[in-house]
Amino acid sequence: MLIIGEKLNSAIPSVRQLINDKDAAAIQDLALRQAAAGADYLDLNTAQGDEIVNMEWLVRTVQDVTDTPLCLDSTSAPVIKKGLETVKGDKSKVLINSISLEKNRIEEVLPLVLEYQCPVVGLTLDDDGIPKTAEERMVLSERLVEVLTKHNYDLEKLYIDPLVLPQAVSHNNAKMFFQCLEDIKRVLKVKTVSGLSNISFNSPKRKVINRHFLTLCMAFDMDAAILDPLDKKIMSSVITNDFLLGKDRFGKKFLKAFRSELLED
Amino acid sequence: MLIIGEKLNSAIPSVRQLINDKDAAAIQDLALRQAAAGADYLDLNTAQGDEIVNMEWLVRTVQDVTDTPLCLDSTSAPVIKKGLETVKGDKSKVLINSISLEKNRIEEVLPLVLEYQCPVVGLTLDDDGIPKTAEERMVLSERLVEVLTKHNYDLEKLYIDPLVLPQAVSHNNAKMFFQCLEDIKRVLKVKTVSGLSNISFNSPKRKVINRHFLTLCMAFDMDAAILDPLDKKIMSSVITNDFLLGKDRFGKKFLKAFRSELLED
Repeated sequence: MLIIGEKLNSAIPSVRQLINDKDAAAIQDLALRQAAAGADYLDLNTAQGDEIVNMEWLVRTVQDVTDTPLCLDSTSAPVIKKGLETVKGDKSKVLINSISLEKNRIEEVLPLVLEYQCPVVGLTLDDDGIPKTAEERMVLSERLVEVLTKHNYDLEKLYIDPLVLPQAVSHNNAKMFFQCLEDIKRVLKVKTVSGLSNISFNSPKRKVINRHFLTLCMAFDMDAAILDPLDKKIMSSVITNDFLLGKDRFGKKFLKAFRSELLED
Repeated sequence: MLIIGEKLNSAIPSVRQLINDKDAAAIQDLALRQAAAGADYLDLNTAQGDEIVNMEWLVRTVQDVTDTPLCLDSTSAPVIKKGLETVKGDKSKVLINSISLEKNRIEEVLPLVLEYQCPVVGLTLDDDGIPKTAEERMVLSERLVEVLTKHNYDLEKLYIDPLVLPQAVSHNNAKMFFQCLEDIKRVLKVKTVSGLSNISFNSPKRKVINRHFLTLCMAFDMDAAILDPLDKKIMSSVITNDFLLGKDRFGKKFLKAFRSELLED
């Protein structure tokens, strides 16, 4: 499974402080540790603060120490534009997080995705908000695919996020999300992605819920997840699930992780 | 999910010793603790030792302290017959583990299942052994359903176990098992069951593998599992998965387990 490291996010108070302080060494340490722990992308989010200035600084600071591809995480087109301009090297490797069917994102963010042919996270969301049913989310997923196809975008690079809502709000929220994962893969044959933390919002034992949610999502063939690669239990889950789902030939990665004492009991 | 407590099994050396010593108090303690931890059935297996005599003693000893339904676990018809005769109360509540398409089990164990209309575990196995492919296991599952239907057996009481083989032997074994779980439910609309320990045979970190295997099986809607209900991490998984799969209305059981400090980080 593709792992998008979530730690470089200004929503985390300690990280927000590091960004505000322009503490390059601490930020670079977080970047390097996530990459070493198995992050395929490093998500960068500077929404809490001077977003555009901080994004430019964050991209530069992280790229000074690692070639791990970046995921630009903003709802603002100018921030993504500034991030893309700042990125050194192959800009088509940048994952853009995210577009949706909201009018401003189609008009302003989509052109940036198309200009650089970046991989992109597509949210099942329009100007009416997040639909209530799996069926309505499928309709939005289909519209996303239509729009991208019309622009000759390579659908291999699309990761649809059907947007999970807290299980504490309705005990059908996770189940509806799993339904979306299945339907999107079966009908549209495109990739899927999710963050983990929304599912456990307002519940106790959030890490336990998040970890089991991840394993269940992987059973439904989810392709990517935004998670904390420094959480050894989460990473043990990813490695064990890839082994059990037949995605780890001869269990090589599982056995390597075991020998490196990375698998938590 | 239905939980079949696996601890009263003579394959476990310490339990074998208790059975041989006829240590009723220790056996009863194991029975009561499994029931308190959430076991819906208590599996009784005396295969290692004087099987028929020990089964009679075990049934009596356990039923002296708990009404939790029993699961008679033997390949031998006389042992199951003796167990059924010894059981007090409603014998149609006894789960028989197991029948298969092996000639002697059809001829000798099936009549006992039919006589008392017990729920039963049906293994996808015949006199040629365990089939190599998911398709062949489906053929055996269909034959099991046919045989039982012919005898007017209530298919609601059938739990098919498609027999998982160790992941260390082939990295497709778990995946093939998940395929069987899906196909059996979709095509035959009967229940499914599995033990957990075979999957991790000859692998390190067996408990980690078993626990993730269980969660993945639950994603594929498995109805029952033979497991150790005294393992708090396994039970945390069952409770969390039932919550996320929408089987725990309003998350009542999850919240109760949290308040009772049963959920492990």
